[in-house]
Amino acid sequence: MVNVAVLGYGTVGSGVVEVLEGNRDLIAARVGKDIHVKYILDLRDFPGDPFADRVVHDVNVILEDPEISVVCEVMGGVGAAYQFTKSALEKGKSVCTSNKELVALHGAELLAIAKAHQCNYLFEASVGGGIPLIRPFVRSLTAERILSIVGILNGTTNYILTRMEEEGAKLRDVLAQAQELGYAERDPEADVEGHDACRKISILSNLMTGHYIDAEEVPTKGIMEISAKDFIFAEEAGYTIRLLGISRLEKDDRLSVLVAPHLVSVGSPLAAVKDVFNGVLITGNMVGDTMYYGRGAGKLPTASAVVSDVIDAVLTGTESVPGGWDETKVEIMPIEETESRFFLRVNKDDIRKVLDAFPGGEAVLSDEVVNQAGFMTPVLKTGDFNRTVEALGEAVLGKMRVLN
Amino acid sequence: MVNVAVLGYGTVGSGVVEVLEGNRDLIAARVGKDIHVKYILDLRDFPGDPFADRVVHDVNVILEDPEISVVCEVMGGVGAAYQFTKSALEKGKSVCTSNKELVALHGAELLAIAKAHQCNYLFEASVGGGIPLIRPFVRSLTAERILSIVGILNGTTNYILTRMEEEGAKLRDVLAQAQELGYAERDPEADVEGHDACRKISILSNLMTGHYIDAEEVPTKGIMEISAKDFIFAEEAGYTIRLLGISRLEKDDRLSVLVAPHLVSVGSPLAAVKDVFNGVLITGNMVGDTMYYGRGAGKLPTASAVVSDVIDAVLTGTESVPGGWDETKVEIMPIEETESRFFLRVNKDDIRKVLDAFPGGEAVLSDEVVNQAGFMTPVLKTGDFNRTVEALGEAVLGKMRVLN
Repeated sequence: MVNVAVLGYGTVGSGVVEVLEGNRDLIAARVGKDIHVKYILDLRDFPGDPFADRVVHDVNVILEDPEISVVCEVMGGVGAAYQFTKSALEKGKSVCTSNKELVALHGAELLAIAKAHQCNYLFEASVGGGIPLIRPFVRSLTAERILSIVGILNGTTNYILTRMEEEGAKLRDVLAQAQELGYAERDPEADVEGHDACRKISILSNLMTGHYIDAEEVPTKGIMEISAKDFIFAEEAGYTIRLLGISRLEKDDRLSVLVAPHLVSVGSPLAAVKDVFNGVLITGNMVGDTMYYGRGAGKLPTASAVVSDVIDAVLTGTESVPGGWDETKVEIMPIEETESRFFLRVNKDDIRKVLDAFPGGEAVLSDEVVNQAGFMTPVLKTGDFNRTVEALGEAVLGKMRVLN
Repeated sequence: MVNVAVLGYGTVGSGVVEVLEGNRDLIAARVGKDIHVKYILDLRDFPGDPFADRVVHDVNVILEDPEISVVCEVMGGVGAAYQFTKSALEKGKSVCTSNKELVALHGAELLAIAKAHQCNYLFEASVGGGIPLIRPFVRSLTAERILSIVGILNGTTNYILTRMEEEGAKLRDVLAQAQELGYAERDPEADVEGHDACRKISILSNLMTGHYIDAEEVPTKGIMEISAKDFIFAEEAGYTIRLLGISRLEKDDRLSVLVAPHLVSVGSPLAAVKDVFNGVLITGNMVGDTMYYGRGAGKLPTASAVVSDVIDAVLTGTESVPGGWDETKVEIMPIEETESRFFLRVNKDDIRKVLDAFPGGEAVLSDEVVNQAGFMTPVLKTGDFNRTVEALGEAVLGKMRVLN
């Protein structure tokens, strides 16, 4: 029997217990032994809960129990979660987590501690919820030089953008509706400003390079400036709009990383990623494009990924799971130097001026918007694009990158 | 240094060498040692080829060389390939293969031999080409009870169906064009009749159940009866058409497996799988839907998957990679008992008769086809559906399953 402890009995924590219980027999068959939840750490009590007797309030009960070989850290945050994770790893207990903030911030250190103590720090659930993404990356695409990662990494914003796409609705209306349905938090900033996607693309970039990308340095733009009119012009030009985290190996092997809304061709598999689903396109130099799709959040999908890590930890034992990164910081290519096509929404009266400012660009007109026009630039350096936009002043009402 | 041998220097074999050479440094970094192609087995010689000096004609040179720890079987067929694989495994050499026919037919036996001789029989490249599919299945979705697998598993037929969808072209014209472009074989039977997809869904079903599904017993229907008119009615009803391999856990835990063209809702991520790409939707009881997408064939994608297996074989050593199946045969649920909605193409004059025959069904009309109509049945047992269709006689011009 394997004894595990669950830190945090919130949504994901109760999901972890539910998955372990619900699929107990088949998990035992795969692992070769029973996995037993011995402790649940929470500040609260849960009278009446079938696992109320497992609840403890002192983490040391768990840390000091030699029977516990795997800990699930699903409490979130970078304070106590960091301390508890570190202590558990130092005692040779593998830690499986859904805590993307902690993985993005202290992953390198925690991976090194795990290795030094012959256990594992596993984080399949930290990116893409229930989508197998970390393990395919480190166990399957091992013959590949990864050239780029392009991901729809946040379900809340994807839900909002899909509703705007399909209903022509305004962002603020859809956001309010999403909050009512529980798809968006009361304080939606981490989602709509792109911070959540930023942490996830940073973790994937760490894996891609084997080094540390500081999420704070990743240029991050959210969805709040997107208007219903942007969708009208995008559709006219054969595109939709998605919030993307992108990490790309550029010329000279420099790495560009950013989070921003993009026009995405309707023919792209990313355009078919709708509602709360996530999708991540990973391109290798031999295999070309591969994509991974599924529920990027939610109690059971996220818990399933945590439990798959528990199983991996048990099967792997004292060996190190492949993958990971060190603390050497990667310098991200300045966004001004990255190249992209851009979409502009402009005053129709100024379209001549815009055409002159971006030779080789194309106007996009729609009967639905009489006084504005869309515009697609050719491929430009972001710095050059920004300078020209600034010079155009009030002619420009909106701008967005275009996925090539 | 790890010495490997490649059996068969055809398209995939030369791709394996190209991937190992092209990504040599990064593979060495990941594995911790250099991977060296010591032998290439082929009946032919390759004068002028940079690896001409590695070519041998006698498999015993490879089998008797204790330095060879991993063998890539990319020669195809179930004769010599079977003998060579068996002999290599019996000598404790892991075998990595793209040979779906052999895996589908003798997988259970070869997996057992590998286990008995403390090596591995690995087959990531046998399904979905370069798409990580086997390993995510056995290493990632380990906390899941898999409820169903629905896959676009054949690139040639998907290319043909996509061209029909996008150009309104006739099947025979597109097939001829695909043959010219090299996307379809001169003898396309294995692809267009569904046999290739059948082997792949059988392999995935083996993994899903842990037991053996006889591919010969899987009801298999190809694409040759699909008409351009089917696409017109499908589009009218909000669907497209895809050739699907489906394996599903039905009531009473019975397994249904089949290969057949299906109407697929345009909103499904499977509808976004176009051209030669493959896509496989795996549904678990906790995680819900997950999908895997990429190039299902081609020299380098397939070779990349073989090399990822080589890396796994080296890293895993004498341990057994999880997953696999035994020789206990699974009884497939008779197709007559499976339930589905169905699409019919009928003589317009007979539409009243068809409506009466399938209460609760719906006619689909199109201005583009004046003398025919489409028709969607409610969910029916396949046996009942077939009997009613037979009774309708010449009123029915075409029929297809509908993915629910």
